[in-house]
Amino acid sequence: MGILPFVAELGLVDHHCHGVLRADSTRAEFESLLLEADGISGLGGTFFDSAVGFAVRRWCAPLLDLPRHASAEEYLERRNSLHITEVSRTFLMASGIHTFLVDGGFQPERLLSGQELAALSGAGSREVVRLESLAESLRSLVSPSSLLSEVRARLASSSAVGAKSVAAYRCGLALPGARPADSDVVAAVSAWETGRLTDPVVITWLAFEALDAGLPLQFHVGYGDSDLDLHRCDPSLLTPFLRATAGMGVPVLLLHNYPFHRQAGYLAQVFPHVFCDLGLATHGLGHQASRVFAEALEIVPYGKFLFSSDAFGLPELYYLGALLFRQALSDFLADGLRRDAFPEEDAHRIARMMASENAARVYRL
Amino acid sequence: MGILPFVAELGLVDHHCHGVLRADSTRAEFESLLLEADGISGLGGTFFDSAVGFAVRRWCAPLLDLPRHASAEEYLERRNSLHITEVSRTFLMASGIHTFLVDGGFQPERLLSGQELAALSGAGSREVVRLESLAESLRSLVSPSSLLSEVRARLASSSAVGAKSVAAYRCGLALPGARPADSDVVAAVSAWETGRLTDPVVITWLAFEALDAGLPLQFHVGYGDSDLDLHRCDPSLLTPFLRATAGMGVPVLLLHNYPFHRQAGYLAQVFPHVFCDLGLATHGLGHQASRVFAEALEIVPYGKFLFSSDAFGLPELYYLGALLFRQALSDFLADGLRRDAFPEEDAHRIARMMASENAARVYRL
Amino acid sequence: MGILPFVAELGLVDHHCHGVLRADSTRAEFESLLLEADGISGLGGTFFDSAVGFAVRRWCAPLLDLPRHASAEEYLERRNSLHITEVSRTFLMASGIHTFLVDGGFQPERLLSGQELAALSGAGSREVVRLESLAESLRSLVSPSSLLSEVRARLASSSAVGAKSVAAYRCGLALPGARPADSDVVAAVSAWETGRLTDPVVITWLAFEALDAGLPLQFHVGYGDSDLDLHRCDPSLLTPFLRATAGMGVPVLLLHNYPFHRQAGYLAQVFPHVFCDLGLATHGLGHQASRVFAEALEIVPYGKFLFSSDAFGLPELYYLGALLFRQALSDFLADGLRRDAFPEEDAHRIARMMASENAARVYRL
Repeated sequence: MGILPFVAELGLVDHHCHGVLRADSTRAEFESLLLEADGISGLGGTFFDSAVGFAVRRWCAPLLDLPRHASAEEYLERRNSLHITEVSRTFLMASGIHTFLVDGGFQPERLLSGQELAALSGAGSREVVRLESLAESLRSLVSPSSLLSEVRARLASSSAVGAKSVAAYRCGLALPGARPADSDVVAAVSAWETGRLTDPVVITWLAFEALDAGLPLQFHVGYGDSDLDLHRCDPSLLTPFLRATAGMGVPVLLLHNYPFHRQAGYLAQVFPHVFCDLGLATHGLGHQASRVFAEALEIVPYGKFLFSSDAFGLPELYYLGALLFRQALSDFLADGLRRDAFPEEDAHRIARMMASENAARVYRL
Repeated sequence: MGILPFVAELGLVDHHCHGVLRADSTRAEFESLLLEADGISGLGGTFFDSAVGFAVRRWCAPLLDLPRHASAEEYLERRNSLHITEVSRTFLMASGIHTFLVDGGFQPERLLSGQELAALSGAGSREVVRLESLAESLRSLVSPSSLLSEVRARLASSSAVGAKSVAAYRCGLALPGARPADSDVVAAVSAWETGRLTDPVVITWLAFEALDAGLPLQFHVGYGDSDLDLHRCDPSLLTPFLRATAGMGVPVLLLHNYPFHRQAGYLAQVFPHVFCDLGLATHGLGHQASRVFAEALEIVPYGKFLFSSDAFGLPELYYLGALLFRQALSDFLADGLRRDAFPEEDAHRIARMMASENAARVYRL
Repeated sequence: MGILPFVAELGLVDHHCHGVLRADSTRAEFESLLLEADGISGLGGTFFDSAVGFAVRRWCAPLLDLPRHASAEEYLERRNSLHITEVSRTFLMASGIHTFLVDGGFQPERLLSGQELAALSGAGSREVVRLESLAESLRSLVSPSSLLSEVRARLASSSAVGAKSVAAYRCGLALPGARPADSDVVAAVSAWETGRLTDPVVITWLAFEALDAGLPLQFHVGYGDSDLDLHRCDPSLLTPFLRATAGMGVPVLLLHNYPFHRQAGYLAQVFPHVFCDLGLATHGLGHQASRVFAEALEIVPYGKFLFSSDAFGLPELYYLGALLFRQALSDFLADGLRRDAFPEEDAHRIARMMASENAARVYRL
């Protein structure tokens, strides 16, 4: 069960994460941030009784000078006795992540920014621009036709290293396989009064614009909170869009993917510009992450799989995401070595590719 | 491969099963009841050559005083030399199930009732009312508008501890996310002449009525016999219905789920009122049940997973369902202990929750 | 990790494969034939960094007198220094396949025919007729109404032992559950001008005609190249077609199936005429094939699972398909023996069934 030394020592690029909370959390908030539920359920019991809950007690407690498997009560009491900044720094630094690519477009007021995150942990950070949030922030400021040029200008001049679409949450992943005409986009923007953007024409247009601007484009895929309909988040629904964009030569990154990680691996195999990760499903699966990680690597070329934590809010999730990624990668490589599937030097090379080199190539870091 | 002692000793609540056959079975009937086929296939060979078939020879033969792996012929000859009541009692008592929640709505004339089942095994039993059977039994007796009030009255006064929907078999799981208006239900009942109920409006209405009556509501999900179209039995199709009913505070239980058990775990994580099991897929997978069981537990909170056998007709299936559940639960916990994922006392606690405590809480037993 | 001796010695029937290339390959062509991508990707790196790429270096290099894990460069240099006929013979003979069922309908000009393949390896071969290619080859020669009678005549007099449909690539697997009327087929043929056949009416009609002619009918299912939309290749979409054809008593074979191999196993369980394999996903998964193979066998009766390589173009793929099938079958049986799931003599019997006996029964070889 130990982690191979050369995997333990890898520096990581976390190509998709969010910020940590600025303030302490109540137990209810802490539990609900551990996984994707809106809140704890009187019917179903505490979320500490879950894979990620037990992973917190097992792996995070010792970093707060508690014994392994400290109870939830002891853990939260100890955590609240420390300053949140200290807690965050502890877990961020223990993660071994040296570069964070941060989607700051969801609940920015509650979270540290990318720069603050980096400053806290002595790491670097780069921005990923969340397309729907960008459009929503502009909607009330400009006319529909101006919105198009304004989005284009923002993307063209952006310092971000990538863009992110949450189409999965808004309209599902069955995006059309053709760029919408500007006139159709203007009409759709006009019909969208204010607030949450859910129109598939506008969302598809944003995705094309990001690729036009040369920004590697991330899609949330697979499981997430109860806003989404899981069967509409199967990445193979993106096939027409991927077919239409393969020739542009700009990377598309499928995030999380669980339980469609095999479908994602297929798409990354057959489309030259598609990449994938296991994101959220790494810390979310706790001690079972290694099996799903191995599944995710069944048919994907090894140059097309990346690390991400998808950590949001709780600094524990960066640490667990990184730790369980290392554990799962180590288990995958150790199994391959035991079966003599590849020699040791290739195992080292695969590990470096997935830990940081693939991300560096995709995002030109 | 041994079962951990504290798992072997657990008393089980079987929260979803049917009755056993009143009479002996021919070989053809026995084979077809082992799995979900309508009958054996000359093209494909005997169903004893399957996971569940080998499990019968391995685990059931010794309870009839035969050697392990007795041949199918020896097994059936020995079985038929005994009274069916004796065979049934043997397997039911060996299962360690102390409470049966029985759906008696399918082929009741062939099967022992819940009370008879309980009497035979010295266990307790409670009824689960099958919604479509209830409506079908009333259809020819009352007018369409009376059917609504009659169903409501039956559910309100029912002694059942839960209700069950077989929407999967009738119209698929893509139920609407809103309660149908009574006038629409009356119209749909009027259009439904007699016989098998397949109308999605009526089926959705029945599901809402069960929850109104405070009855925990089971859905058949995933694989079953060839009546269903598997892709219409993906539990994520229930998302609009689950979103609409989350606020009612009454449990919804997703049964079987294979091969969508990961989707079911997701729904049980994000919706406060959703629970799941592996049902039929426990005995159906035989010696491979443990891997799928571990998959089913990847992201579900442990307070939301239950035991059921889904045994129908053959008493062997209660025994195998219980035995393979114990084996799989034991393998899951032993793996977690080996990885130091949770301490021993939590392993005991998780085992008790899944064996009976979650069911007791959900059904208020 | 060794292969059980009785599995290593099995002769194999490869019930679905294509021919090998007549000529040497460039590195780019070799890489793209290793998996399902149209070509290598500058963004994603070499396809030698994949499960099948490492399998070539591990298992194929020694057959060309290179050390295990020879580099890609060494491997291709050595390979190109030999005559392609010698390379092909080496891998074909090492596969232990004694009978090839060959779909020669895709790119026949580049590939050896079935007879040539057999002559090269000292094995036997039989033809599988590719339905869409047959119709396409006739389209320009005859009138729409004559096409129907001509197809019927060809199928009735065919020496082929089976037929194959690539509906998955043309219109998806949601074929209707009823035979199209001849008049509808004539209309659809008339509307189809020339070239690639994609009309679902014609494709469904071809499938019914093959079964009418008593030809076991193969369907490409699941992953393949980027022409297909994976979610339209779920075998459960075939349910209405399978329900409509169950009574005809002619086998239907679901090929590959990954990542829907569990769905395929379900269909093979509940429909008397349905069989399945893992095809392409055996060599495509390399050292991880055993886990997916075990998944594919979870609920399928053992008399309904076959071996195929789906090798196309590269002789290495026959060898790897056969070798990894043996490895996976051996791992499955060894695990079952370790768990005492079945006795040794049944393990031998299951192995023979899957290696050749099921194919011999299905295709009446």
